[in-house]
Amino acid sequence: MKFELSTKDQESAARAGKITTDHGEILTPIFMPVGTAGTVKGVHQRELKKDIEAQIILGNTYHLYLRPGLDIIKGAGGLHKFNGWDRPILTDSGGYQVFSLKEIRKISEEGVHFNSHIDGSKHLFTPENVMDIQRVIGADIIMAFDECPPYPCDYEYAENSMHLTHRWLKRCIKRFDETEGNYGYSQALFPIVQGSVYKDLRKASAEFIAEQNQAGNAIGGLSVGEPAEDMYEMLEVVNGILPEEKPRYLMGVGTPANILEAIALGTDMFDCVMPTRNARNGMLFTTEGIINIRNKKWEDDYSVIDTGLKNEVSNFYSKAYLKHLIKCNELLGAQIASIHNLAFYLWLVGQAREHILAGDFTPWKNKMTKKLMQRL
Amino acid sequence: MKFELSTKDQESAARAGKITTDHGEILTPIFMPVGTAGTVKGVHQRELKKDIEAQIILGNTYHLYLRPGLDIIKGAGGLHKFNGWDRPILTDSGGYQVFSLKEIRKISEEGVHFNSHIDGSKHLFTPENVMDIQRVIGADIIMAFDECPPYPCDYEYAENSMHLTHRWLKRCIKRFDETEGNYGYSQALFPIVQGSVYKDLRKASAEFIAEQNQAGNAIGGLSVGEPAEDMYEMLEVVNGILPEEKPRYLMGVGTPANILEAIALGTDMFDCVMPTRNARNGMLFTTEGIINIRNKKWEDDYSVIDTGLKNEVSNFYSKAYLKHLIKCNELLGAQIASIHNLAFYLWLVGQAREHILAGDFTPWKNKMTKKLMQRL
Repeated sequence: MKFELSTKDQESAARAGKITTDHGEILTPIFMPVGTAGTVKGVHQRELKKDIEAQIILGNTYHLYLRPGLDIIKGAGGLHKFNGWDRPILTDSGGYQVFSLKEIRKISEEGVHFNSHIDGSKHLFTPENVMDIQRVIGADIIMAFDECPPYPCDYEYAENSMHLTHRWLKRCIKRFDETEGNYGYSQALFPIVQGSVYKDLRKASAEFIAEQNQAGNAIGGLSVGEPAEDMYEMLEVVNGILPEEKPRYLMGVGTPANILEAIALGTDMFDCVMPTRNARNGMLFTTEGIINIRNKKWEDDYSVIDTGLKNEVSNFYSKAYLKHLIKCNELLGAQIASIHNLAFYLWLVGQAREHILAGDFTPWKNKMTKKLMQRL
Repeated sequence: MKFELSTKDQESAARAGKITTDHGEILTPIFMPVGTAGTVKGVHQRELKKDIEAQIILGNTYHLYLRPGLDIIKGAGGLHKFNGWDRPILTDSGGYQVFSLKEIRKISEEGVHFNSHIDGSKHLFTPENVMDIQRVIGADIIMAFDECPPYPCDYEYAENSMHLTHRWLKRCIKRFDETEGNYGYSQALFPIVQGSVYKDLRKASAEFIAEQNQAGNAIGGLSVGEPAEDMYEMLEVVNGILPEEKPRYLMGVGTPANILEAIALGTDMFDCVMPTRNARNGMLFTTEGIINIRNKKWEDDYSVIDTGLKNEVSNFYSKAYLKHLIKCNELLGAQIASIHNLAFYLWLVGQAREHILAGDFTPWKNKMTKKLMQRL
């Protein structure tokens, strides 16, 4: 994996760059649609390419390990071959999922014992086997196994947890370096900065992560309930330390405003379930602002969803029709809204990139943040 | 609406024809995907055209009347404009739905009083207002308001019900003739033959229906639980009476074998929820036979769904991937299986048509029925 920095904004820490993987290029800043179980919910792979213009999608180690399981993915020749997505893939390590199991997991130095949420079967994730699993899944970018502490979290817990994440990272890197990809293309490992909302911990963690000298770096444990201002403060500290010549990935974030602000703070990669999850509930992000399509005001609005986007779906179906579909719980409603919201997120990061390249990112961001977050 | 008969099979009553409507041509025999609430579940309109090659789809008066309601559809300029489907549409009259409400409807000479299954609100369908409603919805082909008797059904009930359907039909035709379409294109009314599984009633009903001299004719009240042999027997009686120069529509039928047999008996049009409903449960109709994708045998079958079809979806995703999606209740599983099954049904009637034109329909039908109904 290679990262080239094209342009740095003069008024902010925003940057435009390009990641090159064996499955193709990714122009940054970039948003990555979440495909937890090897599928972006409600969206065909050809729609990801044509309507949404996704350049990379996510998969999730925890979910894919349980279903379909590693034998099936290995038999297919990796996740790309299994689901037919031939552009880059990133897999989350499963850490976030197993920690969210709460009642049915136990953390130790070795790793995490947990029970499957599907059938209660017992499993163990360790830094080593999570590397092995991600070798089998075969994503282009794989994530270190970390602990994501809850919010709020006292200082002592956050500090101990950060050190555990760091010790696990060393084991991840060792195993990663001892092994290689199964399918003839290379994989990159991203370590994850933790430290909750404590500046000194975030600083220490970012320094430790930077020293590992991996191909890219991630920032975890944010957008877990803390105020947005705290998130931006942590991001400023961390991005000031993580090396400039490597991509920075802010995990699980966020709203359009969060993403624009995080870009301004020097972040390059994002993922979030918000565009698809909110789509299924009838919340649309548009180039004019936010629409709750369940509101009565849309029932006789026959204008198309969003002429500000170029994709066919946003310019074909009317708001009135989409409202009807969502109200009736019709599958097509979730499909249309998911395509639209993801196309919007890709448009948003694409626009950010263009304005960074054009040199007017900051005024554009300030104007757009207000516009995009208003409720129509 | 115009119907031209192109070819009659020599060894059976099968025919190939062409229906011309103001929204385009329909080559018969034809299968019509069911789009109850103005959407074929899980399928985009462009997929109906490109992957499935649907020539006409169904809508349902009962469902559309309740949601989104007539004001919204009228405001859009009719159902075609509302849902973006610019090829022909047929609407079912709502009779079948209100009768299936059982506990919350009351039949009288006037019509049917019923309570909405959604909010319990009280409504009345009469032959007259069902014509008016279908004028507002604006389908190219609209159906008479009939009573669909249950199965089994004693002779007396079937006879009285048939006469009620006939009296209602006269009222439908009167109202239909007194009114005209709202949107500048013409609509055709199809009356419906009833009579349960009693030959003499079916004969009497078919004669009455034929006398009404409408643009096409439908056969209702079959495939409601009776043995397939009874259905075929009724169909033979009815099709022997309904005029040759008008299309014959068998409502709500059926399996691939049912459709081929009904084509052999001189039927031209079909609709059924089976391809989409079974798709959502993981049952696939393929050119090699029937697949229950939930079976373990498919979990490592990486071959694509069906190379016997030409559409992209059936030739892109593997059986193993589809099994994974259906097992995990992922939306995309329902989407893929729905597109595939509908593409299969359209392929089936298209093949039937080609073999009628080529003069070898009967031997082809006998061979295919066995092949298509075997479980793989």
